[in-house]
Amino acid sequence: MTDKQAAIIGGGVIGGGWAARFALNGWQVNLFDPDPEAERKIREVMQNARASLPLLADKSLPKEGRLVICTRLEEAVRDALWIQESIPEQLAIKQSAFADIQAACRPDAVLASSTSGFRPAQLRDGALRPDQIIVAHPYNPVYLLPAVELVGGTDNPAILTAEQILKDIGMKPVTLRQEIDAHVGDRLLEALWREALWLVKDDVATTAEIDEIISYSFGLRWAQMGLFETYRVAGGEAGMRHFMAQFGPALAWPWTRLMDVPELDEALIEKIARQSDAQSGHYSIRELEAIRDKNLVGFLKVLKDHKWGAGKVYSDWLKTAPLPEQTEKESWQPETPFVRHRTEVLPAWIDYNGHMTEFRYLQVMSDSADCLLSYLGLSAAYVGAGYSIYTVETHIRHLAEAKPGEYITVSTQILYADEKKIRLWHSLKTDAGIEVATGEQMWLHVDMKAGRAVAMRQPLRDRVLGLYEAHRGLGVPEGAGRHIGQKQAG
Amino acid sequence: MTDKQAAIIGGGVIGGGWAARFALNGWQVNLFDPDPEAERKIREVMQNARASLPLLADKSLPKEGRLVICTRLEEAVRDALWIQESIPEQLAIKQSAFADIQAACRPDAVLASSTSGFRPAQLRDGALRPDQIIVAHPYNPVYLLPAVELVGGTDNPAILTAEQILKDIGMKPVTLRQEIDAHVGDRLLEALWREALWLVKDDVATTAEIDEIISYSFGLRWAQMGLFETYRVAGGEAGMRHFMAQFGPALAWPWTRLMDVPELDEALIEKIARQSDAQSGHYSIRELEAIRDKNLVGFLKVLKDHKWGAGKVYSDWLKTAPLPEQTEKESWQPETPFVRHRTEVLPAWIDYNGHMTEFRYLQVMSDSADCLLSYLGLSAAYVGAGYSIYTVETHIRHLAEAKPGEYITVSTQILYADEKKIRLWHSLKTDAGIEVATGEQMWLHVDMKAGRAVAMRQPLRDRVLGLYEAHRGLGVPEGAGRHIGQKQAG
Repeated sequence: MTDKQAAIIGGGVIGGGWAARFALNGWQVNLFDPDPEAERKIREVMQNARASLPLLADKSLPKEGRLVICTRLEEAVRDALWIQESIPEQLAIKQSAFADIQAACRPDAVLASSTSGFRPAQLRDGALRPDQIIVAHPYNPVYLLPAVELVGGTDNPAILTAEQILKDIGMKPVTLRQEIDAHVGDRLLEALWREALWLVKDDVATTAEIDEIISYSFGLRWAQMGLFETYRVAGGEAGMRHFMAQFGPALAWPWTRLMDVPELDEALIEKIARQSDAQSGHYSIRELEAIRDKNLVGFLKVLKDHKWGAGKVYSDWLKTAPLPEQTEKESWQPETPFVRHRTEVLPAWIDYNGHMTEFRYLQVMSDSADCLLSYLGLSAAYVGAGYSIYTVETHIRHLAEAKPGEYITVSTQILYADEKKIRLWHSLKTDAGIEVATGEQMWLHVDMKAGRAVAMRQPLRDRVLGLYEAHRGLGVPEGAGRHIGQKQAG
Repeated sequence: MTDKQAAIIGGGVIGGGWAARFALNGWQVNLFDPDPEAERKIREVMQNARASLPLLADKSLPKEGRLVICTRLEEAVRDALWIQESIPEQLAIKQSAFADIQAACRPDAVLASSTSGFRPAQLRDGALRPDQIIVAHPYNPVYLLPAVELVGGTDNPAILTAEQILKDIGMKPVTLRQEIDAHVGDRLLEALWREALWLVKDDVATTAEIDEIISYSFGLRWAQMGLFETYRVAGGEAGMRHFMAQFGPALAWPWTRLMDVPELDEALIEKIARQSDAQSGHYSIRELEAIRDKNLVGFLKVLKDHKWGAGKVYSDWLKTAPLPEQTEKESWQPETPFVRHRTEVLPAWIDYNGHMTEFRYLQVMSDSADCLLSYLGLSAAYVGAGYSIYTVETHIRHLAEAKPGEYITVSTQILYADEKKIRLWHSLKTDAGIEVATGEQMWLHVDMKAGRAVAMRQPLRDRVLGLYEAHRGLGVPEGAGRHIGQKQAG
């Protein structure tokens, strides 16, 4: 039994997205859904998630958690720390589910509803422990989009626990200050949706034309700044107040049809369904999902590289995500090469030839080097004092191809060291023992301010020289000291 | 005098964006704006455009058109094929400007207004040639976002001409079927804006929290699919009709505050301005613009790679964009090193020492190598036939540090080639001309199935050997052929 257990009550697209989020973060997921199709559906969503979320990671994610299909609700919730309800939007059904869950679950578990519309006060009506029930409203696809609206009191312990757990699984909790029907996101969406229905009904534009206008203009803006920040920029140096003054009068103009609710009669439903078929009917839903996920991964990578917006959620998450379990750490003796870094060959590392692209080999060596430097005592404080170690030269030999899904372990040896200089050797092997690459590097210890090589300070110096002494017995590997194009020995 | 002349009446952010669009597509731009600050403002916007739009192009853009500052309206419009009005939103002022313009311009010119709110019928009232006047409503930043709403009759010749010209300058015209106040995009925006004002006024969430909810969820969705297509996917295999049936009832629920217009009084303006300062006040507007443009370029590149949505507008545009009279490409002589790849040092590439981390140097070299291979004829079809080029060895020397925000250009030279082997040299320099790194590589041409080196096929072979012949005259760079730790020459 693992401490990290999430219970997913109700599968489908949203429940499946939650399941994938937790499982890819190493949580055991207990699914309860009486629908005989639930397991198939949830496995399809998880397949989509496995093909996309890991593309955002520069390192291996934790080992995927188990999916446990439960035939009884109690079994699913009993040991769960997080219980997510994603069943149909009918208040009585939800309240009854919460009664059953609270009769069986831990009192300290987070009990969250994915509801789009109901307020916590409605969900809690008649509950055993009302405060335990909160709203955690996500967005589809849950395994890629980080936003979650939390509703249920800003100082409620269940909300505080939920905030921490959501951050741990790479999501962005936004806790609302008041509870209102439909929270924040769906209110904004509904406002826009109503206006869009009028535009179609009145034949101003088709669904395809409205979608083009959205996604070729403010959709691109809102993927990285929201409504207010975008308008702040539009207002220019004169600022937000100036912008508001300009925009203000429009509120009194009779522009929108907002004051009037369009009747969603059969004719309008038929019109929209027909236009939507003309717009997107040549793709299956599976194809559209795959296109959507590729685009979202691409956007999130752009934002992650710029450490901005939704991308920052992922860069922060990757900093703190638990590493897969390591086994070799404990048993290492300094007389043998340093082996601390093992990594999966990630899907994003593959080039058009179908194997790991060249610069990723250096990345893997570099990650092992960072483990070694940390072991030797190159701490943040050491760097903060103005000293560090720079790589001045690297020589890589590619000996075999690493393929997606394989694991590579790096073995690192000190070939030479003096008080200013370290020469080292990396050997990259797959789990099958095939050496895919070697790397030889020259490092210099530098005074960063002065911009020149200086003697290492303690304790780094003694540790480096000590490890070099220990490694002298290992001999010089074949391939060391070679230049480009030099013939193979033997 | 060139045939392609655009007159920009009214500078500012929108006029400046139009000016940049036309100029970067090789059009002469005549600016008329009585504001003495207009030229400075427009040059600032053009500077932003030059730093972003060309990053989307795989080929050189046409030579930038001249910017001509006109002191008289007649001078600006006389020979223009496109006249864009972006003056303040006051109907009488606009009507008067159109009267002056029509007295001086060509009758076959497109006379377009950037108005957010007015209908063509209002703008045309009392005009000399009413049909010549249309609405072409763009989105800020105009030099990156492709959407333009065209209003003024679907079979009006001015609209048909406008559609063609907008496509030619990399934009996406969407012609509305009916004219209504505020067109389509601003109606949708206004609906959402009103609801957002209520949320702030009622203390449900702050401007920052609302922006997070938007940009970490449906903002990312709408950058690539619009409202209707997103809901179609959410509806699953059951389709749009099923989704509509589910969503329908919400229209009758008393969720949104849409039926009621919030009063934009001093207290609400002050509240929003204060929250916006807390949210974004630590960035200047210039900084926010730069962040926005980098993110937009990144998104558009992702979409272009997938030939999807707004990115498809750019891939189509690049296919048809007129070739520059004298491009860098065409002027490149094989007797000089190959220079095609220039990249920003991204924030995510920085290590704990504060400069670009080692493996990113190899990534930059590798990206230049991919440009070279593509130039030499290593196509997808070539690889598909089972042949490719593998790197077998790389030697990198780090000579100086590249810092975040700097740009690096790679210059690549063939040191040696025969029918199976290529040895090459990369030099990485900053815009200041500092060589930050060099790379020497050995490539082998392989039969991927057989897993061994074989002679290159045509046309790759002749092109490689031809470029090697051309590069022989360049000599061997200092640093080539060195092994790790070898003393510097001289």
